[in-house]
Amino acid sequence: MAISNLQVARAAYQPKLPKALQGPVKAVEGAATQSVGNQEEIKALFPNTYGMPVITFEAGEKVDLPAFNVGIILSGGQAPGGHNVISGLFDGVKSLNPENKLYGFILGPGGLVDHNYMEITSELMDQYRNTGGFDIIGSGRTKLEKEEQFEKGIEILRELGIKALVIIGGDDSNTNACVLAEYYAAKKYGVQVIGCPKTIDGDLKNDEIETSFGFDTACKTYSELIGNIQRDCNSARKYWHFIKVMGRSASHIALECALQCQPNICLVSEEVEAKEQSLDDVVTYIAQAVANRAADGNNFGTVVIPEGIIEFIPAIKKLIAELNEVLVDPATGEMREFPSKEEQVAFVKSHIAAENLAVLESLPADVERQLCLDRDPHGNVQVSLIETEKLLSAMVAKKLEAWKAEGKFVGKFSAQHHFFGYEGRCAAPSNYDADYCYSLGYNASRLIANGKTGYMSIIKNTTAPADQWIAGGVPITKMMNIERRNGANKPVIRKALVELDGAPFKFFAANRDVWAKETAYVYPGPIQYWGPTEVCDQPTKTLQLEQAK
Amino acid sequence: MAISNLQVARAAYQPKLPKALQGPVKAVEGAATQSVGNQEEIKALFPNTYGMPVITFEAGEKVDLPAFNVGIILSGGQAPGGHNVISGLFDGVKSLNPENKLYGFILGPGGLVDHNYMEITSELMDQYRNTGGFDIIGSGRTKLEKEEQFEKGIEILRELGIKALVIIGGDDSNTNACVLAEYYAAKKYGVQVIGCPKTIDGDLKNDEIETSFGFDTACKTYSELIGNIQRDCNSARKYWHFIKVMGRSASHIALECALQCQPNICLVSEEVEAKEQSLDDVVTYIAQAVANRAADGNNFGTVVIPEGIIEFIPAIKKLIAELNEVLVDPATGEMREFPSKEEQVAFVKSHIAAENLAVLESLPADVERQLCLDRDPHGNVQVSLIETEKLLSAMVAKKLEAWKAEGKFVGKFSAQHHFFGYEGRCAAPSNYDADYCYSLGYNASRLIANGKTGYMSIIKNTTAPADQWIAGGVPITKMMNIERRNGANKPVIRKALVELDGAPFKFFAANRDVWAKETAYVYPGPIQYWGPTEVCDQPTKTLQLEQAK
Repeated sequence: MAISNLQVARAAYQPKLPKALQGPVKAVEGAATQSVGNQEEIKALFPNTYGMPVITFEAGEKVDLPAFNVGIILSGGQAPGGHNVISGLFDGVKSLNPENKLYGFILGPGGLVDHNYMEITSELMDQYRNTGGFDIIGSGRTKLEKEEQFEKGIEILRELGIKALVIIGGDDSNTNACVLAEYYAAKKYGVQVIGCPKTIDGDLKNDEIETSFGFDTACKTYSELIGNIQRDCNSARKYWHFIKVMGRSASHIALECALQCQPNICLVSEEVEAKEQSLDDVVTYIAQAVANRAADGNNFGTVVIPEGIIEFIPAIKKLIAELNEVLVDPATGEMREFPSKEEQVAFVKSHIAAENLAVLESLPADVERQLCLDRDPHGNVQVSLIETEKLLSAMVAKKLEAWKAEGKFVGKFSAQHHFFGYEGRCAAPSNYDADYCYSLGYNASRLIANGKTGYMSIIKNTTAPADQWIAGGVPITKMMNIERRNGANKPVIRKALVELDGAPFKFFAANRDVWAKETAYVYPGPIQYWGPTEVCDQPTKTLQLEQAK
Repeated sequence: MAISNLQVARAAYQPKLPKALQGPVKAVEGAATQSVGNQEEIKALFPNTYGMPVITFEAGEKVDLPAFNVGIILSGGQAPGGHNVISGLFDGVKSLNPENKLYGFILGPGGLVDHNYMEITSELMDQYRNTGGFDIIGSGRTKLEKEEQFEKGIEILRELGIKALVIIGGDDSNTNACVLAEYYAAKKYGVQVIGCPKTIDGDLKNDEIETSFGFDTACKTYSELIGNIQRDCNSARKYWHFIKVMGRSASHIALECALQCQPNICLVSEEVEAKEQSLDDVVTYIAQAVANRAADGNNFGTVVIPEGIIEFIPAIKKLIAELNEVLVDPATGEMREFPSKEEQVAFVKSHIAAENLAVLESLPADVERQLCLDRDPHGNVQVSLIETEKLLSAMVAKKLEAWKAEGKFVGKFSAQHHFFGYEGRCAAPSNYDADYCYSLGYNASRLIANGKTGYMSIIKNTTAPADQWIAGGVPITKMMNIERRNGANKPVIRKALVELDGAPFKFFAANRDVWAKETAYVYPGPIQYWGPTEVCDQPTKTLQLEQAK
């Protein structure tokens, strides 16, 4: 199998560990914990895993442990560093006893239920050290939430002599990991469950979790590209580039890219929602920046857009909610059928509220048509298919044309469009993510050795050099509250949206007017693995600003 | 002005020079040259700049030269390394006499004609060393081809005391540089003109020019992204990614990316044309690869597509040629007007040949509509607006559906689309391009010092370490022949398309069946500036294969 020179050289990188994890550890326990909300309800749901103390590891004495086996599962979308969590766990587990084995469940949680697994051998592991992707065992989106799944799981865990299961995933997967931990604890099955915090969107973050892994690498990769586009933009001086980046429910990625690249405009979904902006407000904001730059003779610029923005605009959210229902026949619960597309469009338009119809008709013709016609199998509008970057630029163009006629815009407006998602989700991890993920995995082995279950592996103080990082564990229940999901109350880990009073957004807000008017582009360039530490080893601007508080 | 840490660190990089350029040089002249074709006609057109010898520089004695000034122009689209050509020229010119000045003409050849210029000072230059983009003086697409432009040019050249003008550009710009050199020589204006070979598409390449600058960096940037997508593809295992890359008239970029990444499929426009493939042939080829992988349970893959492919399919080329004419009223030479879009579509369909109509109607509905409706101001189809990657995947999906009904395809097909152009054109130059471009610029100063005009700056043997590179100059007329352009015979530099009997294509062709079936992805990762030399300093695979002959 051919591999690139970078892969060869990078395989030799030994990720850094916090000082406490470099030898035998002892677990120092803090006080008992409470969940962040709905304490009584969470406690009732998790009688065996609620209230446990926060753990911090310090240097300790070596303890000889009998051999045991560990299982690992990758859950959900890819994020850079997943393989390093596994290699950290692998090395940690082997360091406790070389006889220990690590089993990977294949293609996500489904592998546990379907008994689809492989042993992660030393030879296999070495091919994946410091690489991107989740391809070593694959990932999947099966939700582990039913008792029969848990029971199918325990069969194979017992068969393989697995003492502990590590689940790498986002907020939902870690919630489910805790439900599983609780179930196995209640049943006294003797299998521990440990979670690892992953979401590329950066929304699994709280007082305990500084950042979710992969966020650093993904943002740096997108920023490389945005920087390159900005350099082109500033050389050709004739296009406005509309650049959409990942982030359905939170705008952390867009914001971090803006902090790194200083584009003319960056939209933040959370702000649009908080200010209850209309689509026209957003379009006017962009068009005004275009007009201002045009007045200076600059008919070019960049706009960074979070993927989910459209669902944060209250008027669009209402429109979509009604569109999701209008084509379903309430008598049958099935999608209505129409003899022609034109009749379907006409039906939609004549059956929605006047207010929503006005919003619908304000959209470009092709988006209007798509919203009336395209549905997923449940009758829902396929929001992710809307090319928001094109929608916004088309509406900006229309507004500028009107302004031109009024003499309010003197210039040219021509747009290019980009969407970056897959380009960064599987990039080889930056030094930061390589170290952070390896530490998370290694640390998980120490939580296992200390008999913990229902804990999340936690590494803190990561803006300091790695040997000063703080390793430990936090009960997953501590991060939970009760939220309404799909019509039912559920215990969930609270999603971290961009905080408008947080340091990263405030820094952005304080600078964006200058960035909008001037050409203040920064060009971060590609991720570097070797070279000066200020180039290779810096955490994200978001994290630096948050920790500098 | 904020700059990134990478920019700061990279500014300190001192590009490498060929040994011969590290001190004073002497010019060694070869035999008189001939143009590659149409010798008599080229000779007649260029009486003063035809037949000059190839020059090679060797170490020589220091000669004291009186101070002189030099002008520089960036022509056409951005390519990584343009700033390094300028910094090489700057350092070279200053090394000859610190009193020498370098003037940049602003926003391309138009700056010469309009007397729009700036002095490139040491302070300015230092901000742009080893950076991407053309933003130091900007570029432009004005063609320098008329006598009145040449005369306007000489006014400002004389006013600024400019002895030589360096033009950085592609095949057309270098042809025009030679026309200008010839004109000034014939008029005895005493101004030399030197060309530098740039095209990101890699099609300015011949026996004298090993590679055009920026090709290395752009291909490595696109390959980073394709590799990341492949890693995602191989982790998620559920999408076929259709990835379009730059390259209107030549597929060098697509081919180089394929050599670096080993995607399942890479189309090469030159092969499609040579084999006179139909669109259905291309679609069938892709669909068959999808079906073959599906039979192995692999419902995922990658397809790399050169931007220009559609114009290389003979049937589409014919269709477009007829579409370009059908809407123009021969009586007036103007575009016909229609009361509605529907009538325009109907007119087109009823006025083109049956054969072309059949091709048109084989296309997806939205592309068919676009071809009938969208025109540039000259009535031409806007081929660049066709989203070829979506067109191909839609047609592959349709074919697979038919095959599924016949039992010839068992699997799922779901596509994602990407287009990479702006993401790489202004990337900070790789070490190779940083050194190569700096050497090209530095070398141009030696051609100037030796009184040459109508020469292109040439650096060869670039697969060896930089100190073994060979520096010199080649008369631009040597690369010319006569071709028919816009209805007239013109002297032009022959464009280098992908040669189907060349080493890079042959290596690709020998391996592609395996790459199509297996998952043999290579992940090149981001360009590295520091670190192991096999990671940081390798030329393109194309160049390595070509030079290994």
